[in-house]
Amino acid sequence: VRRGAAPKPAFTRLDHDTRRAQLVERGLRLFAKRPYDEVSMEDVAGELGISKGLLYHYFPTKRDLYVASLGEAARDLLERTDLPTGDPGTRLARGVDAYLAYCADHAPAYIALMRGGIGSDREVGRIVEKVRTTLITRILGGLALPAPPPRVRIALRGWIGMVEAATLDWVQHRDLPRDEVRDLLTEWLVRSLAGAELRPRPGHR
Amino acid sequence: VRRGAAPKPAFTRLDHDTRRAQLVERGLRLFAKRPYDEVSMEDVAGELGISKGLLYHYFPTKRDLYVASLGEAARDLLERTDLPTGDPGTRLARGVDAYLAYCADHAPAYIALMRGGIGSDREVGRIVEKVRTTLITRILGGLALPAPPPRVRIALRGWIGMVEAATLDWVQHRDLPRDEVRDLLTEWLVRSLAGAELRPRPGHR
Repeated sequence: VRRGAAPKPAFTRLDHDTRRAQLVERGLRLFAKRPYDEVSMEDVAGELGISKGLLYHYFPTKRDLYVASLGEAARDLLERTDLPTGDPGTRLARGVDAYLAYCADHAPAYIALMRGGIGSDREVGRIVEKVRTTLITRILGGLALPAPPPRVRIALRGWIGMVEAATLDWVQHRDLPRDEVRDLLTEWLVRSLAGAELRPRPGHR
Repeated sequence: VRRGAAPKPAFTRLDHDTRRAQLVERGLRLFAKRPYDEVSMEDVAGELGISKGLLYHYFPTKRDLYVASLGEAARDLLERTDLPTGDPGTRLARGVDAYLAYCADHAPAYIALMRGGIGSDREVGRIVEKVRTTLITRILGGLALPAPPPRVRIALRGWIGMVEAATLDWVQHRDLPRDEVRDLLTEWLVRSLAGAELRPRPGHR
């Protein structure tokens, strides 16, 4: 049984960070639902129940909020697709499935991002690139190939590009069940790696 | 034998368009050699041998020149990769080879574009998308599949994403001969389409 609330702490660094994190999380939800251009700072403040002045204190521009939200989305996506247990094939399929589910849940934001719309600059590019390199590092870890030969590196880069383009098409049309897209993407990785690595080489088969 | 030059025509619409086309072509060469951020309007005017004022008359901002150059590059790329004769396999391989050659010749511009750097907005997005849809329409024409089923459409979109990502990696590293990259990309299209279309379906094989 609680006897009265604990005294409310003074404004601290933690409060600032906690509040900022809340704003980022709500921003992410807003940008996921509506195109960037249609989200105004006024809307954001209204939906978050804070003053525009306070919002600007945390994020001087809408782009700042967008970039912070995108960074959060990237962390979230990498966490959900990180499945350390199970055999490599199962982990890959489950990872691809989690990727597709996340992109479908954040379709407007994913479409805007991949179409290279507003807010697509170096900072955004760095966040997108971080996701790609993390995914590639995980796959290479599963292949026990820390330093891949050029053909494998190009195949993995190509496959990530394929996942992004296929996902963009799928979230716009939604005319194929998610598990079929997952199976296509998973098979394509296996086929791409087979094409890149398992072909006969001079001197050995 | 010419007897003296024809009288110089007055300033006409053609002159304006011809001059503009020249500026676009030189702009394309500049952006192909150096990153966008390192190209100033002053440099452009200097290299083109015209005044900054005249350059601004044709292109009010550097972005305008960039977008015009990119549009020109897209037309150029689509023309070079359009090989209407020969069997589909040969045309595909030659088209991919021309694509790789063009991107290698314009590597700094291709890298900036694909990394979503400066200038990556809706206008740029439309130019990039036009290239993709044209390439896909050509492949579908070769397959005699004007209205592809979802699996094939997603496979083609995915393959274009793969070509872009693999090319971006390759022009940055150049550690594989062009014909090997060409063969990888060509094989991947065949494999992707095989995965998308040629699998057994319920009711028939």
